[in-house]
Amino acid sequence: MTQLEEAKKGRITEAMRQVAEAEGLSAETVRERVAKGRVVIPRNINHPFVARGIGEGLTTKVNANLGTSPSHFDIKEELKKLDAAIHAGADAVMDLSTGGKLDRILKAILRHSTVMVGTVPIYKTVSKVLSENRKVYDMTADEIFDEIEAQAVLGVDFVTVHCGVTRSSLKVLQGCDRVMGIVSRGGSLLAEWSVKNEAENPLYESYDRLLEIARTYDVTLSLGDGLRPGSIFDAEDSAQISEMIILGELAERARHAGVQVMIEGPGHVPLGRIAGDMRLQKRVCGGAPYYVLGPLPTDIGAGYDHITAAIGGAIAAASGADFLCYVTPAEHLTLPGVQEVKEGVIASKIAAHIGDLEKGVASAWERDRKMSEARNRFDWKTMFALSVDPDKAKKMRQASEDKDRDVCTMCGDFCALKTYARAFDEDELL
Amino acid sequence: MTQLEEAKKGRITEAMRQVAEAEGLSAETVRERVAKGRVVIPRNINHPFVARGIGEGLTTKVNANLGTSPSHFDIKEELKKLDAAIHAGADAVMDLSTGGKLDRILKAILRHSTVMVGTVPIYKTVSKVLSENRKVYDMTADEIFDEIEAQAVLGVDFVTVHCGVTRSSLKVLQGCDRVMGIVSRGGSLLAEWSVKNEAENPLYESYDRLLEIARTYDVTLSLGDGLRPGSIFDAEDSAQISEMIILGELAERARHAGVQVMIEGPGHVPLGRIAGDMRLQKRVCGGAPYYVLGPLPTDIGAGYDHITAAIGGAIAAASGADFLCYVTPAEHLTLPGVQEVKEGVIASKIAAHIGDLEKGVASAWERDRKMSEARNRFDWKTMFALSVDPDKAKKMRQASEDKDRDVCTMCGDFCALKTYARAFDEDELL
Repeated sequence: MTQLEEAKKGRITEAMRQVAEAEGLSAETVRERVAKGRVVIPRNINHPFVARGIGEGLTTKVNANLGTSPSHFDIKEELKKLDAAIHAGADAVMDLSTGGKLDRILKAILRHSTVMVGTVPIYKTVSKVLSENRKVYDMTADEIFDEIEAQAVLGVDFVTVHCGVTRSSLKVLQGCDRVMGIVSRGGSLLAEWSVKNEAENPLYESYDRLLEIARTYDVTLSLGDGLRPGSIFDAEDSAQISEMIILGELAERARHAGVQVMIEGPGHVPLGRIAGDMRLQKRVCGGAPYYVLGPLPTDIGAGYDHITAAIGGAIAAASGADFLCYVTPAEHLTLPGVQEVKEGVIASKIAAHIGDLEKGVASAWERDRKMSEARNRFDWKTMFALSVDPDKAKKMRQASEDKDRDVCTMCGDFCALKTYARAFDEDELL
Repeated sequence: MTQLEEAKKGRITEAMRQVAEAEGLSAETVRERVAKGRVVIPRNINHPFVARGIGEGLTTKVNANLGTSPSHFDIKEELKKLDAAIHAGADAVMDLSTGGKLDRILKAILRHSTVMVGTVPIYKTVSKVLSENRKVYDMTADEIFDEIEAQAVLGVDFVTVHCGVTRSSLKVLQGCDRVMGIVSRGGSLLAEWSVKNEAENPLYESYDRLLEIARTYDVTLSLGDGLRPGSIFDAEDSAQISEMIILGELAERARHAGVQVMIEGPGHVPLGRIAGDMRLQKRVCGGAPYYVLGPLPTDIGAGYDHITAAIGGAIAAASGADFLCYVTPAEHLTLPGVQEVKEGVIASKIAAHIGDLEKGVASAWERDRKMSEARNRFDWKTMFALSVDPDKAKKMRQASEDKDRDVCTMCGDFCALKTYARAFDEDELL
């Protein structure tokens, strides 16, 4: 039985208890939200690890995309990226490999990861088809579903499936005057398949087959936004919203079938549209958890898109996004290396934390209070421990001239806190 | 005559023309806004450079704080930081030196800078007093004003003056249960002076004397927020707002006296309060340009506060802030070096650009459109040129395996843009 089926029957599982403990909530509260589909607990029955939840009233989670590309594949590097992501605080990783021995890489990541693991199974299917010198549109529906099932057997916790790239949403897309067309890899592959074969996307047409696999292994479906905007000019156009509406319908069918489901979101979105997009998704998709990439409020951030994504991600999380997919400084340029993975996770964790403050998460406020109190009493050890990257904070301080004094080298004897304390040292009242 | 006096008389100056050209506005529009005090053009009559404006309807500007500290001073390093800041796109720099030969450093920065230069004159006054083994409260009002005048003669374009740290606002502060007290260096020094001497802050009491100096050299006053919150817990408390109201009154007096004036703002502010704070300042301060530090929507970002400030700064700019003071990764830890200065400026430029998109600045939208169009046609040269840091973007791409192909190593043959083009290659309609 899936977590959702258990929850609907009123049963509290061990996974729900683990989520409740991590979040400081009662297990019954978690169960209720899982039952309504407002919280998901992605954990394949074949993949043991301490469960974490995603959704309403929980802390904002962060995902790090790992994976090789056809021109860059090294399994050892992927495992280093996995370690870096988890050390920096990632709550989930996705193996998006498209180069090298895909099965071996996925198995290694599943074995080593202490957090939930997601994939985009269509990548593997297409890789196989291309390696046999066939075309994308030669791929069969059976090949698509067989690969999803194979990965479910291996223990994948959540899969991105671009079920909303349908004949109807593609037709809407054709009427949109987009700057960037389709920027989702999976979305573009299914669009090509559908157009060339003049047939409906199998992930939509045979959605029940997908639900059956997901239900059997309790794989959480992450309904992909294949038509997400790749430029701020394309944000919230009819194509994006048409797909979102389809995903809302599919989410309802998933919940009805006892399958856990979340929705993926944009992409490039102007800052002023981010909050509205979050509210629209929650409305249209029945409160399903929202998993957003970025969002990026500008297109010009290449080299620094971890920062543009942190800006968009903070606003998204503050407005209800539940799960942030990190973006690294390498976005739009190249595959990220270990350092970029680390920077991406940290930027995204900052955004998630700021979102949590706005969501009223008590532990987030407590952390800021403790940090400021430590700063006020020059307690550097506590400040390091509470900062987003204790190693870096400590290293920067240690490299300064004032490392052995209580003040820092920014102000030295001009320290405002010291002066303030001196001003009111005898509790002088005005 | 100051720019404001000229504008009030209906005269368009060369500086207004330079601002108009840079912003793509008519010179008359610039003059009108300067006359109303909604735009300032900080440029000392003794400091020649191409003028830039700050305020309503103009692009969001970025300031980089330079300067030594008592335990770290090297004039060559300061000039390297100046170069790095200007190369990264800073529109202004402030010399906040408190260590080494302060006059020599300021003169060197004024001579080398191609952008406006600001200072906090009280630092120099206090440094002198301390070097004579006197106490902060031994400083005289004459010493404070003489130093401001000396810096005005040297050519400083704008000065931060903490005129709002008064007996009345300090009394309000004492009633506030702050986590962090006063975190402004200048603010804390004037508070100490006022409390120990049981006397009013000379910058408030003799404000007309300050106005006379500023008017003579056309120094723009930047009314400092000496009581700004240093923790998100202290944001928008009565002390902060009491000071803002005083600054609003002083701004009106400055405009009346023909002196250009802007207002400084917080500090640490929870994300959800940033937009409201921007609107409040504009209301209370008669539309005077708002110069904000950060804001930082969390206290835990040490080591990455350029990112937390970019998050707050983007929202601030989108909500009306005119001028962003950068924050570097070294904030709360140590004095920034050349690399941190660069990272700080770029993060702040990203925030300013995102703010400009929301402000509807046409050139900002044009840049994003050109970027996405270049990306869509794999025109890497144009993408590098339009990105926030062309050198870094190019370097990252050049280090990848696919540097000589049109695709990037993120996706390689899985490139969504290629697949999309293939899908609809014969203009197939659904």
